[in-house]
Amino acid sequence: MSTLPQTHPLLDGRTASSPLVRAYRGERGSTTPVWFMRQAGRSLPEYRSLREGVAMLDSCLDPAMASEITLQPVRRHGVDAAIFFSDIVIPLRLAGVDVEIVPGRGPVLGRPVRTAADVARLRELTLEPEALEPIRQGIAATVAELGSTPLIGFAGAPFTLAAYLVEGGPSKDHLGARAMMHADPDSWRDLMEWAADISAAFLRAQILAGASAGQLFDSWAGSLSPTDYGTSVQWASARALAAVADLGAPLVHFGVGTGEILAAMRDAGADVVGVDWRTTLEEASRRLGGDTPVQGNLDPALLSAPWPVLESAVLAVLKSGRAAPSHVFNLGHGVPPDTDPDVLTRIVALVHEAGGDSA
Amino acid sequence: MSTLPQTHPLLDGRTASSPLVRAYRGERGSTTPVWFMRQAGRSLPEYRSLREGVAMLDSCLDPAMASEITLQPVRRHGVDAAIFFSDIVIPLRLAGVDVEIVPGRGPVLGRPVRTAADVARLRELTLEPEALEPIRQGIAATVAELGSTPLIGFAGAPFTLAAYLVEGGPSKDHLGARAMMHADPDSWRDLMEWAADISAAFLRAQILAGASAGQLFDSWAGSLSPTDYGTSVQWASARALAAVADLGAPLVHFGVGTGEILAAMRDAGADVVGVDWRTTLEEASRRLGGDTPVQGNLDPALLSAPWPVLESAVLAVLKSGRAAPSHVFNLGHGVPPDTDPDVLTRIVALVHEAGGDSA
Repeated sequence: MSTLPQTHPLLDGRTASSPLVRAYRGERGSTTPVWFMRQAGRSLPEYRSLREGVAMLDSCLDPAMASEITLQPVRRHGVDAAIFFSDIVIPLRLAGVDVEIVPGRGPVLGRPVRTAADVARLRELTLEPEALEPIRQGIAATVAELGSTPLIGFAGAPFTLAAYLVEGGPSKDHLGARAMMHADPDSWRDLMEWAADISAAFLRAQILAGASAGQLFDSWAGSLSPTDYGTSVQWASARALAAVADLGAPLVHFGVGTGEILAAMRDAGADVVGVDWRTTLEEASRRLGGDTPVQGNLDPALLSAPWPVLESAVLAVLKSGRAAPSHVFNLGHGVPPDTDPDVLTRIVALVHEAGGDSA
Repeated sequence: MSTLPQTHPLLDGRTASSPLVRAYRGERGSTTPVWFMRQAGRSLPEYRSLREGVAMLDSCLDPAMASEITLQPVRRHGVDAAIFFSDIVIPLRLAGVDVEIVPGRGPVLGRPVRTAADVARLRELTLEPEALEPIRQGIAATVAELGSTPLIGFAGAPFTLAAYLVEGGPSKDHLGARAMMHADPDSWRDLMEWAADISAAFLRAQILAGASAGQLFDSWAGSLSPTDYGTSVQWASARALAAVADLGAPLVHFGVGTGEILAAMRDAGADVVGVDWRTTLEEASRRLGGDTPVQGNLDPALLSAPWPVLESAVLAVLKSGRAAPSHVFNLGHGVPPDTDPDVLTRIVALVHEAGGDSA
């Protein structure tokens, strides 16, 4: 029995037959659905003017503003899905972690989590249901406007949250986090368990409030050896995904540079695997055994290429995606901040024109 | 007919039968040879005291200092090869490019190369034979001390040099360089051709002065899609490698995150392929068709793990390397600056004890 509220879009059919939800369920329709990671915010002038003078995390926690930013790219580009405007460190902030987004740098923690004592202190913090109220309100306001277009909720995966917590900020190779998993496996397990439950609570609140699908972003999982992923990380992502599985919303799992661990990411409990531009969708599908829907994977660097180059790259991605049972077109990573929004609109039109069955 | 001088170690047999050179030639001996990328410098206290008050690029251009830094890890760890202490931007500096290494940040250019006019100006710069004199002197002094231990020369691959030139400094996704190859393919080709010739001149000078092997570092090639690598990058690496092929020294090609393009990197003209920790050596060998010697690939994050964990990881790498005709043990990336040097010494002993034939 699903625990979705009776008005949830997946139950009342508002989004259940949308191209996105059908593709996420493995059905190939007449059109390939398309959306863009980081489509909300960043490159849009209407976003920049709305955000003026408002700190990143504050904008995520203002329900009206988060909802408006989420809707902007849907109106402008005609994409097949909205992705909720938020940040993967938001659930950390809502649990009481001292974290701020420093412009041009990324999330920076007041105090990195490096020792067993740090982890024990962290585990005293809990993500209370009432703390998630701004998220629920933002989702509800968004869904009310979206009609039959599905909203995708998201959360950072436990490893990516843990990497931020251990490093204290963005880092290149996440060596600190990857060292801790070997040097202090008990603390690592405790940290990952806490992070998994925070991820799950954030994602669950979004789906219950009206999101039709969920994406777990393991941004940094690509820095791991396949052995470390399998031994010290996969179980925690599985824990987060299992905690929302009863809701029945399709779940996507994505990370950059994860070509070697695509099957392991699927096996953590995802319905759909997102692929970056380093691995062709054909090769990704081969590694996934050919029966898993895929999402991706245009190289963001191509967004500034002349249209004929970009056009043929988009068509090549669509062709490569035919190897999977179904395909949701996306970039292989987030929209770069200096992207010309008109290019994204043109890609949406091209993907829709190219069709799905016949691509 | 080889153009090596008559005293070259490959000809007089001083290093031709060393475990490293034999493994690079595809022969599996009784011991697996081992060295570490970035073993020269960084983590060694004797290096830090020598470098005190000397800027990075100045230390590379001081023959006595570069030679001493190159020799330090050979003395300390008993590794099977020295790697010449230098920097991939050194040939740019010697050609007259305004580049400096900013501590904690990396190479920073006075003026990024972004337009056709920038590329044209760059191409007026040439790497004169006399500019390479400090390199030749450093190599000669090193080889005189090394005896039968081979010295590996190296150069940055054209794409990695081009990425620095276009970005003006280190960057995350090298989007500027990857955009230029599509937006302005003519300038890109000119830039890559120039960079290939600079790479080749730097590597050639090192081999002629006494290096027994050469490694082309394409540090950032892993940010490319397989299509872009094949279309816009591979030819330039092939040009650089072809320009030293007549010397007969074994050539290694390495980049981080290059699991999807290992065969393409080999096909650029390399004898040996370096593999990072994301791809097992077994899978890498499968992708390489099983007949290419491999080098790698212990995850540097494991260097801070407790010895039993590290020990079993080293043995697992040795086992995985059995899938290739021969294997040179290394890390999957450079030695992290805060590594305990004693751990490296202990790994060398373990690799040597574990044997080669019987590993």
